[in-house]
Amino acid sequence: MSATLLAIFKRPEGGDDELEEFLQRYHAEHLPLIEEVPGLRVTQVERVTGHFAGDDIVVVTRMTFDDRAALDAGMASDEMRVAGRNLREIAPGMLTLLAIDEAAE
Amino acid sequence: MSATLLAIFKRPEGGDDELEEFLQRYHAEHLPLIEEVPGLRVTQVERVTGHFAGDDIVVVTRMTFDDRAALDAGMASDEMRVAGRNLREIAPGMLTLLAIDEAAE
Repeated sequence: MSATLLAIFKRPEGGDDELEEFLQRYHAEHLPLIEEVPGLRVTQVERVTGHFAGDDIVVVTRMTFDDRAALDAGMASDEMRVAGRNLREIAPGMLTLLAIDEAAE
Repeated sequence: MSATLLAIFKRPEGGDDELEEFLQRYHAEHLPLIEEVPGLRVTQVERVTGHFAGDDIVVVTRMTFDDRAALDAGMASDEMRVAGRNLREIAPGMLTLLAIDEAAE
């Protein structure tokens, strides 16, 4: 069964300019680094277009690997370390990063 | 284009007993209420199996509608009001609820 890495980004401190700068650098700098991570099959970036309750989230990204072993190997890779360093620069304090699996009913 | 309602649940206060009770009631009480919401096409419940950064999230649920108008109509329905009342009882303070759309690259 495939395994998914889920990145949830809170709104950056500041205003619309800071949000636009994050989005621009996320697409221009970070996603190309993420594409280099070994074992990553699909990256799906989703923008928040409505907020009904809770935290002020702006972007949710799903990264799919073949299985949990591939996800863990990707997390431990040099490429992910480089991508993580970039993210600490462009999205300080904004990130929640999780592994998720479809629940058995 | 389809529209997705994303529910993100933080870990309940307390310990493993409180988490198990939430999960049990979420599946036994809440999901059957959600299934009654008009326009809802697919519900996909995902459990968090690994935590790498940020908030302590335990469940992420994607609810897919045909389009944003159908999502908004579902949110405004009596069935969603009933489901929301149930959720305030079984998951107080745990929920972030968002509408998300796939981002243009």
